[in-house]
Amino acid sequence: MEEDKISIAVVKRLPRYYRYLGDLLDNGITRISSGELSKKMHITASQIRQDLNKFGRFGQRGYGYDVELLYEEIKRILGLDRQYNMVIIGAGNLGQALANYGNFSRRGFNFIGIFDKDPNKIGMEVGNMRVQDVGELDAFLNKNSVDIAVLSIPKTNASQITSILVKNGIRGIWNYSHIDLRTPDDVVVENVHLTDSVMTLSYKLSELENSK
Amino acid sequence: MEEDKISIAVVKRLPRYYRYLGDLLDNGITRISSGELSKKMHITASQIRQDLNKFGRFGQRGYGYDVELLYEEIKRILGLDRQYNMVIIGAGNLGQALANYGNFSRRGFNFIGIFDKDPNKIGMEVGNMRVQDVGELDAFLNKNSVDIAVLSIPKTNASQITSILVKNGIRGIWNYSHIDLRTPDDVVVENVHLTDSVMTLSYKLSELENSK
Repeated sequence: MEEDKISIAVVKRLPRYYRYLGDLLDNGITRISSGELSKKMHITASQIRQDLNKFGRFGQRGYGYDVELLYEEIKRILGLDRQYNMVIIGAGNLGQALANYGNFSRRGFNFIGIFDKDPNKIGMEVGNMRVQDVGELDAFLNKNSVDIAVLSIPKTNASQITSILVKNGIRGIWNYSHIDLRTPDDVVVENVHLTDSVMTLSYKLSELENSK
Repeated sequence: MEEDKISIAVVKRLPRYYRYLGDLLDNGITRISSGELSKKMHITASQIRQDLNKFGRFGQRGYGYDVELLYEEIKRILGLDRQYNMVIIGAGNLGQALANYGNFSRRGFNFIGIFDKDPNKIGMEVGNMRVQDVGELDAFLNKNSVDIAVLSIPKTNASQITSILVKNGIRGIWNYSHIDLRTPDDVVVENVHLTDSVMTLSYKLSELENSK
Protein backbone atom coordinates (compact mmCIF):
# COMPACT_ATOMS: atom_id res chain seq x y z
CA MET A 1 0.00 0.00 0.00
CA GLU A 2 1.24 3.46 -0.75
CA GLU A 3 -1.45 5.62 0.78
CA ASP A 4 0.84 8.53 1.42
CA LYS A 5 1.39 8.90 -2.31
CA ILE A 6 -2.28 9.23 -3.23
CA SER A 7 -2.88 12.62 -4.79
CA ILE A 8 -5.78 14.77 -3.63
CA ALA A 9 -7.37 14.44 -7.08
CA VAL A 10 -7.53 10.66 -6.67
CA VAL A 11 -8.77 11.00 -3.09
CA LYS A 12 -11.62 13.18 -4.32
CA ARG A 13 -12.63 10.42 -6.74
CA LEU A 14 -12.49 7.61 -4.15
CA PRO A 15 -15.93 8.29 -2.59
CA ARG A 16 -17.43 7.96 -6.06
CA TYR A 17 -15.71 4.60 -6.64
CA TYR A 18 -16.86 3.56 -3.19
CA ARG A 19 -20.45 4.49 -4.06
CA TYR A 20 -20.44 2.56 -7.33
CA LEU A 21 -18.74 -0.48 -5.82
CA GLY A 22 -21.32 -0.46 -3.02
CA ASP A 23 -24.12 -0.46 -5.61
CA LEU A 24 -22.47 -3.39 -7.41
CA LEU A 25 -22.25 -5.37 -4.17
CA ASP A 26 -25.91 -4.59 -3.42
CA ASN A 27 -26.71 -6.08 -6.81
CA GLY A 28 -24.70 -9.21 -6.14
CA ILE A 29 -21.90 -8.39 -8.60
CA THR A 30 -18.61 -9.71 -7.24
CA ARG A 31 -16.19 -8.83 -10.01
CA ILE A 32 -15.96 -6.25 -12.72
CA SER A 33 -13.51 -5.23 -15.43
CA SER A 34 -12.22 -1.68 -15.76
CA GLY A 35 -14.11 -1.54 -19.08
CA GLU A 36 -17.46 -2.36 -17.50
CA LEU A 37 -16.84 0.00 -14.61
CA SER A 38 -15.88 2.66 -17.15
CA LYS A 39 -19.25 2.33 -18.89
CA LYS A 40 -21.13 2.64 -15.61
CA MET A 41 -19.13 5.57 -14.24
CA HIS A 42 -18.59 7.42 -17.50
CA ILE A 43 -14.87 7.79 -16.98
CA THR A 44 -12.22 6.16 -19.12
CA ALA A 45 -11.01 2.64 -18.37
CA SER A 46 -7.42 3.86 -18.37
CA GLN A 47 -8.26 6.50 -15.73
CA ILE A 48 -9.86 3.77 -13.62
CA ARG A 49 -6.83 1.52 -13.96
CA GLN A 50 -4.52 4.41 -13.13
CA ASP A 51 -6.55 5.29 -10.03
CA LEU A 52 -7.16 1.80 -8.70
CA ASN A 53 -3.84 0.21 -9.48
CA LYS A 54 -2.43 2.46 -6.76
CA PHE A 55 -4.02 0.07 -4.30
CA GLY A 56 -2.19 -2.88 -5.76
CA ARG A 57 -3.26 -6.46 -6.24
CA PHE A 58 -6.96 -5.84 -7.03
CA GLY A 59 -7.07 -5.78 -10.77
CA GLN A 60 -5.96 -9.00 -12.40
CA ARG A 61 -5.68 -9.34 -16.13
CA GLY A 62 -8.56 -11.39 -17.51
CA TYR A 63 -10.34 -11.41 -14.17
CA GLY A 64 -11.05 -7.78 -13.44
CA TYR A 65 -11.51 -6.28 -10.03
CA ASP A 66 -12.72 -8.20 -7.02
CA VAL A 67 -15.54 -5.83 -6.07
CA GLU A 68 -15.67 -6.65 -2.37
CA LEU A 69 -11.90 -6.55 -1.83
CA LEU A 70 -11.68 -3.22 -3.61
CA TYR A 71 -14.70 -1.86 -1.75
CA GLU A 72 -13.22 -2.84 1.60
CA GLU A 73 -9.83 -1.42 0.70
CA ILE A 74 -11.26 1.94 -0.36
CA LYS A 75 -13.41 1.91 2.77
CA ARG A 76 -10.27 1.50 4.86
CA ILE A 77 -8.33 4.15 2.96
CA LEU A 78 -11.20 6.62 3.37
CA GLY A 79 -11.19 5.95 7.10
CA LEU A 80 -14.68 4.45 6.99
CA ASP A 81 -13.72 1.36 8.97
CA ARG A 82 -14.31 3.26 12.21
CA GLN A 83 -16.95 5.45 13.85
CA TYR A 84 -16.82 9.24 14.19
CA ASN A 85 -18.55 11.34 16.81
CA MET A 86 -19.68 14.67 15.45
CA VAL A 87 -21.22 17.86 16.74
CA ILE A 88 -23.05 20.49 14.72
CA ILE A 89 -22.51 24.16 15.51
CA GLY A 90 -25.47 26.09 14.13
CA ALA A 91 -29.00 24.65 14.25
CA GLY A 92 -30.41 26.69 11.36
CA ASN A 93 -31.91 25.07 8.28
CA LEU A 94 -28.57 23.75 7.12
CA GLY A 95 -27.58 22.33 10.52
CA GLN A 96 -31.00 20.71 10.74
CA ALA A 97 -30.71 19.29 7.25
CA LEU A 98 -27.39 17.65 8.15
CA ALA A 99 -28.69 16.36 11.50
CA ASN A 100 -31.67 14.74 9.78
CA TYR A 101 -29.77 13.18 6.87
CA GLY A 102 -29.69 9.44 7.58
CA ASN A 103 -26.86 8.61 5.19
CA PHE A 104 -24.18 9.91 7.54
CA SER A 105 -24.84 7.55 10.45
CA ARG A 106 -25.07 4.66 8.00
CA ARG A 107 -21.44 5.47 7.06
CA GLY A 108 -20.27 5.74 10.67
CA PHE A 109 -20.67 9.49 11.17
CA ASN A 110 -22.72 9.91 14.33
CA PHE A 111 -24.08 13.21 15.55
CA ILE A 112 -23.95 13.44 19.35
CA GLY A 113 -24.67 17.14 19.87
CA ILE A 114 -26.04 20.24 18.18
CA PHE A 115 -25.51 23.80 19.40
CA ASP A 116 -26.86 27.26 18.72
CA LYS A 117 -26.78 30.66 20.36
CA ASP A 118 -30.39 31.54 19.47
CA PRO A 119 -32.67 31.17 22.56
CA ASN A 120 -35.51 30.26 20.17
CA LYS A 121 -33.58 27.26 18.93
CA ILE A 122 -32.09 26.07 22.22
CA GLY A 123 -34.13 23.15 23.57
CA MET A 124 -35.66 22.38 20.17
CA GLU A 125 -35.50 18.72 19.07
CA VAL A 126 -33.46 18.11 15.91
CA GLY A 127 -32.64 14.63 14.64
CA ASN A 128 -33.10 13.00 18.09
CA MET A 129 -30.97 15.65 19.77
CA ARG A 130 -31.87 18.68 21.82
CA VAL A 131 -30.25 21.90 20.68
CA GLN A 132 -27.85 23.07 23.37
CA ASP A 133 -26.65 26.57 24.17
CA VAL A 134 -23.35 27.17 22.35
CA GLY A 135 -22.11 28.55 25.67
CA GLU A 136 -22.05 24.90 26.81
CA LEU A 137 -19.89 23.78 23.89
CA ASP A 138 -16.60 24.07 25.74
CA ALA A 139 -17.84 21.92 28.66
CA PHE A 140 -19.47 19.41 26.30
CA LEU A 141 -16.27 18.89 24.30
CA ASN A 142 -14.35 18.51 27.51
CA LYS A 143 -16.65 15.71 28.71
CA ASN A 144 -17.26 13.91 25.39
CA SER A 145 -14.99 12.42 22.80
CA VAL A 146 -15.74 14.32 19.58
CA ASP A 147 -13.86 13.77 16.32
CA ILE A 148 -15.49 16.18 13.91
CA ALA A 149 -17.31 19.49 14.27
CA VAL A 150 -19.64 20.77 11.57
CA LEU A 151 -19.65 24.56 11.25
CA SER A 152 -23.00 25.68 9.88
CA ILE A 153 -22.92 29.20 11.24
CA PRO A 154 -22.38 32.65 9.68
CA LYS A 155 -18.75 33.51 9.05
CA THR A 156 -18.73 36.25 11.71
CA ASN A 157 -18.65 33.64 14.50
CA ALA A 158 -16.60 30.98 12.74
CA SER A 159 -13.13 31.97 13.99
CA GLN A 160 -14.14 32.21 17.62
CA ILE A 161 -15.89 28.83 17.55
CA THR A 162 -12.89 27.31 15.77
CA SER A 163 -10.65 28.41 18.66
CA ILE A 164 -12.90 26.58 21.13
CA LEU A 165 -12.87 23.47 18.93
CA VAL A 166 -9.10 23.45 18.48
CA LYS A 167 -8.50 24.09 22.18
CA ASN A 168 -10.59 21.01 22.98
CA GLY A 169 -8.66 18.73 20.63
CA ILE A 170 -11.12 18.53 17.73
CA ARG A 171 -9.11 17.23 14.77
CA GLY A 172 -11.62 17.57 11.94
CA ILE A 173 -13.77 20.51 10.90
CA TRP A 174 -16.44 20.25 8.21
CA ASN A 175 -16.79 23.90 7.34
CA TYR A 176 -19.94 25.31 5.74
CA SER A 177 -19.16 28.87 6.89
CA HIS A 178 -18.15 31.00 3.97
CA ILE A 179 -14.68 31.77 5.29
CA ASP A 180 -11.25 30.14 5.03
CA LEU A 181 -10.45 28.92 8.53
CA ARG A 182 -6.95 29.13 9.94
CA THR A 183 -6.15 26.00 11.94
CA PRO A 184 -3.00 24.30 13.26
CA ASP A 185 -1.38 21.62 11.06
CA ASP A 186 -2.87 18.80 13.11
CA VAL A 187 -6.45 19.94 12.47
CA VAL A 188 -7.93 19.14 9.08
CA VAL A 189 -10.65 21.16 7.39
CA GLU A 190 -12.99 20.18 4.59
CA ASN A 191 -14.82 23.16 3.12
CA VAL A 192 -18.27 23.16 1.56
CA HIS A 193 -18.61 26.67 0.20
CA LEU A 194 -22.03 26.71 -1.43
CA THR A 195 -21.63 30.19 -2.92
CA ASP A 196 -18.38 29.11 -4.57
CA SER A 197 -20.18 26.07 -5.95
CA VAL A 198 -23.02 28.05 -7.54
CA MET A 199 -20.42 30.39 -9.09
CA THR A 200 -18.74 27.39 -10.68
CA LEU A 201 -22.13 26.52 -12.13
CA SER A 202 -22.67 30.04 -13.53
CA TYR A 203 -19.16 29.87 -15.03
CA LYS A 204 -20.10 26.63 -16.80
CA LEU A 205 -23.34 28.22 -18.05
CA SER A 206 -21.45 31.24 -19.42
CA GLU A 207 -18.96 28.97 -21.12
CA LEU A 208 -21.90 27.12 -22.70
CA GLU A 209 -23.36 30.40 -23.97
CA ASN A 210 -20.00 31.53 -25.33
CA SER A 211 -19.46 28.28 -27.19
CA LYS A 212 -22.68 28.65 -29.17
CA MET B 1 -8.94 37.18 -23.02
CA GLU B 2 -8.45 33.45 -23.28
CA GLU B 3 -11.35 32.14 -21.28
CA ASP B 4 -11.63 28.91 -23.22
CA LYS B 5 -8.16 27.94 -22.04
CA ILE B 6 -8.89 28.28 -18.33
CA SER B 7 -8.47 24.91 -16.63
CA ILE B 8 -11.14 23.64 -14.27
CA ALA B 9 -8.62 23.83 -11.39
CA VAL B 10 -8.23 27.58 -11.97
CA VAL B 11 -12.00 28.01 -12.35
CA LYS B 12 -12.50 26.35 -8.97
CA ARG B 13 -10.14 28.91 -7.42
CA LEU B 14 -11.80 31.95 -9.05
CA PRO B 15 -14.69 32.26 -6.55
CA ARG B 16 -12.13 32.43 -3.79
CA TYR B 17 -10.20 35.23 -5.53
CA TYR B 18 -13.51 36.95 -6.14
CA ARG B 19 -14.36 36.73 -2.44
CA TYR B 20 -11.01 38.13 -1.31
CA LEU B 21 -11.02 40.91 -3.92
CA GLY B 22 -14.55 41.84 -2.83
CA ASP B 23 -13.35 42.09 0.78
CA LEU B 24 -10.46 44.32 -0.31
CA LEU B 25 -12.85 46.63 -2.19
CA ASP B 26 -15.12 46.76 0.87
CA ASN B 27 -12.10 47.92 2.82
CA GLY B 28 -11.21 50.61 0.28
CA ILE B 29 -8.09 48.86 -1.02
CA THR B 30 -7.70 49.61 -4.73
CA ARG B 31 -4.45 47.86 -5.58
CA ILE B 32 -2.50 44.93 -4.21
CA SER B 33 0.66 43.04 -5.10
CA SER B 34 0.70 39.29 -5.61
CA GLY B 35 2.87 39.11 -2.47
CA GLU B 36 0.31 40.85 -0.28
CA LEU B 37 -2.54 38.82 -1.74
CA SER B 38 -0.47 35.69 -1.14
CA LYS B 39 -0.19 36.52 2.59
CA LYS B 40 -3.93 37.06 2.88
CA MET B 41 -4.99 34.01 0.93
CA HIS B 42 -2.27 31.64 2.11
CA ILE B 43 -1.34 30.55 -1.38
CA THR B 44 1.99 31.25 -3.04
CA ALA B 45 2.56 34.49 -4.96
CA SER B 46 3.71 32.51 -7.97
CA GLN B 47 0.47 30.53 -7.98
CA ILE B 48 -1.47 33.80 -7.86
CA ARG B 49 0.52 35.26 -10.73
CA GLN B 50 0.08 32.08 -12.74
CA ASP B 51 -3.68 32.10 -12.13
CA LEU B 52 -4.35 35.79 -12.67
CA ASN B 53 -1.99 36.48 -15.53
CA LYS B 54 -4.35 34.38 -17.61
CA PHE B 55 -6.65 37.37 -17.58
CA GLY B 56 -3.97 39.61 -19.01
CA ARG B 57 -3.17 43.24 -18.38
CA PHE B 58 -4.09 43.35 -14.66
CA GLY B 59 -0.80 42.78 -12.93
CA GLN B 60 1.80 45.43 -13.69
CA ARG B 61 5.31 45.19 -12.36
CA GLY B 62 5.83 47.62 -9.49
CA TYR B 63 2.15 48.48 -9.37
CA GLY B 64 0.43 45.25 -8.51
CA TYR B 65 -3.13 44.37 -9.36
CA ASP B 66 -5.89 46.89 -9.87
CA VAL B 67 -8.36 45.35 -7.42
CA GLU B 68 -11.54 46.66 -9.01
CA LEU B 69 -10.56 45.81 -12.59
CA LEU B 70 -9.59 42.31 -11.55
CA TYR B 71 -12.76 41.91 -9.46
CA GLU B 72 -14.94 42.99 -12.37
CA GLU B 73 -13.10 40.75 -14.80
CA ILE B 74 -13.44 37.68 -12.59
CA LYS B 75 -17.09 38.58 -12.02
CA ARG B 76 -17.61 38.60 -15.77
CA ILE B 77 -15.73 35.33 -16.31
CA LEU B 78 -17.77 33.65 -13.58
CA GLY B 79 -20.95 34.80 -15.30
CA LEU B 80 -21.90 37.00 -12.35
CA ASP B 81 -22.62 40.04 -14.51
CA ARG B 82 -26.14 38.78 -15.11
CA GLN B 83 -29.14 37.46 -13.16
CA TYR B 84 -30.21 33.84 -12.90
CA ASN B 85 -33.70 32.52 -12.20
CA MET B 86 -33.66 29.38 -10.12
CA VAL B 87 -36.13 26.81 -8.86
CA ILE B 88 -35.62 24.39 -5.99
CA ILE B 89 -36.91 20.84 -6.29
CA GLY B 90 -37.30 19.42 -2.80
CA ALA B 91 -38.48 21.58 0.09
CA GLY B 92 -36.93 19.53 2.88
CA ASN B 93 -34.43 21.01 5.33
CA LEU B 94 -31.77 21.39 2.68
CA GLY B 95 -34.09 23.01 0.12
CA GLN B 96 -35.30 25.36 2.83
CA ALA B 97 -31.75 26.19 3.89
CA LEU B 98 -30.88 27.16 0.32
CA ALA B 99 -34.11 29.16 -0.14
CA ASN B 100 -33.40 31.15 3.01
CA TYR B 101 -29.73 31.85 2.37
CA GLY B 102 -29.51 35.52 1.46
CA ASN B 103 -26.06 35.38 -0.15
CA PHE B 104 -27.38 33.87 -3.37
CA SER B 105 -29.72 36.69 -4.38
CA ARG B 106 -27.00 39.19 -3.49
CA ARG B 107 -24.91 37.49 -6.21
CA GLY B 108 -27.71 37.46 -8.78
CA PHE B 109 -29.12 33.99 -8.12
CA ASN B 110 -32.84 34.48 -7.59
CA PHE B 111 -35.20 31.77 -6.45
CA ILE B 112 -38.56 32.03 -8.16
CA GLY B 113 -40.12 28.69 -7.26
CA ILE B 114 -39.85 25.75 -4.87
CA PHE B 115 -41.50 22.37 -5.35
CA ASP B 116 -42.17 19.22 -3.38
CA LYS B 117 -44.37 16.15 -3.67
CA ASP B 118 -45.19 15.95 0.04
CA PRO B 119 -48.77 17.23 0.69
CA ASN B 120 -47.58 18.41 4.11
CA LYS B 121 -45.05 20.72 2.51
CA ILE B 122 -47.15 21.99 -0.41
CA GLY B 123 -48.50 25.45 0.42
CA MET B 124 -45.91 26.06 3.14
CA GLU B 125 -44.08 29.39 2.96
CA VAL B 126 -40.32 29.12 2.44
CA GLY B 127 -38.10 32.13 1.76
CA ASN B 128 -41.00 34.29 0.46
CA MET B 129 -42.23 31.49 -1.80
CA ARG B 130 -45.08 29.02 -1.45
CA VAL B 131 -44.11 25.40 -1.95
CA GLN B 132 -45.82 24.12 -5.09
CA ASP B 133 -46.79 20.58 -6.02
CA VAL B 134 -43.99 19.03 -8.08
CA GLY B 135 -46.76 17.91 -10.45
CA GLU B 136 -46.96 21.57 -11.49
CA LEU B 137 -43.26 21.77 -12.32
CA ASP B 138 -43.65 21.03 -16.01
CA ALA B 139 -46.28 23.77 -16.47
CA PHE B 140 -44.29 26.24 -14.34
CA LEU B 141 -41.12 25.76 -16.40
CA ASN B 142 -43.13 26.15 -19.55
CA LYS B 143 -44.50 29.52 -18.42
CA ASN B 144 -41.40 30.95 -16.69
CA SER B 145 -37.85 31.52 -17.79
CA VAL B 146 -35.70 29.42 -15.49
CA ASP B 147 -31.91 29.10 -15.81
CA ILE B 148 -30.95 26.80 -12.97
CA ALA B 149 -32.72 24.05 -11.05
CA VAL B 150 -31.53 22.94 -7.63
CA LEU B 151 -32.06 19.25 -6.95
CA SER B 152 -32.41 18.71 -3.21
CA ILE B 153 -34.38 15.47 -3.39
CA PRO B 154 -33.53 11.80 -2.72
CA LYS B 155 -31.70 10.10 -5.55
CA THR B 156 -34.65 7.82 -6.34
CA ASN B 157 -36.54 10.69 -7.99
CA ALA B 158 -33.58 12.58 -9.42
CA SER B 159 -33.52 11.04 -12.91
CA GLN B 160 -37.22 11.52 -13.55
CA ILE B 161 -37.12 15.16 -12.43
CA THR B 162 -34.00 15.73 -14.54
CA SER B 163 -35.92 14.57 -17.63
CA ILE B 164 -38.62 17.18 -16.96
CA LEU B 165 -35.98 19.86 -16.47
CA VAL B 166 -34.07 19.00 -19.63
CA LYS B 167 -37.27 18.76 -21.68
CA ASN B 168 -38.13 22.30 -20.60
CA GLY B 169 -34.79 23.74 -21.60
CA ILE B 170 -33.14 24.10 -18.20
CA ARG B 171 -29.40 24.52 -18.89
CA GLY B 172 -27.96 24.33 -15.39
CA ILE B 173 -28.52 21.82 -12.59
CA TRP B 174 -27.13 22.28 -9.11
CA ASN B 175 -27.30 18.73 -7.90
CA TYR B 176 -27.44 17.82 -4.20
CA SER B 177 -28.94 14.38 -4.91
CA HIS B 178 -26.40 11.69 -4.24
CA ILE B 179 -26.37 10.38 -7.79
CA ASP B 180 -24.41 11.17 -10.95
CA LEU B 181 -26.94 12.65 -13.37
CA ARG B 182 -26.85 11.89 -17.07
CA THR B 183 -27.63 15.01 -19.08
CA PRO B 184 -27.17 16.14 -22.70
CA ASP B 185 -23.98 18.07 -23.55
CA ASP B 186 -25.78 21.41 -23.50
CA VAL B 187 -26.89 21.00 -19.89
CA VAL B 188 -24.27 21.62 -17.20
CA VAL B 189 -24.30 20.04 -13.78
CA GLU B 190 -22.52 21.10 -10.61
CA ASN B 191 -22.59 18.43 -7.92
CA VAL B 192 -22.58 18.96 -4.20
CA HIS B 193 -22.28 15.46 -2.80
CA LEU B 194 -22.20 15.94 0.96
CA THR B 195 -21.49 12.29 1.73
CA ASP B 196 -18.46 12.40 -0.60
CA SER B 197 -17.30 15.52 1.18
CA VAL B 198 -17.46 14.01 4.67
CA MET B 199 -15.56 10.97 3.33
CA THR B 200 -12.80 13.27 2.13
CA LEU B 201 -12.67 14.64 5.66
CA SER B 202 -12.42 11.18 7.20
CA TYR B 203 -9.65 10.38 4.72
CA LYS B 204 -7.72 13.45 5.87
CA LEU B 205 -8.27 12.44 9.51
CA SER B 206 -6.95 8.93 8.84
CA GLU B 207 -3.94 10.32 7.07
CA LEU B 208 -3.30 12.54 10.08
CA GLU B 209 -3.48 9.50 12.39
CA ASN B 210 -1.17 7.48 10.15
CA SER B 211 1.40 10.26 10.03
CA LYS B 212 1.82 10.29 13.81
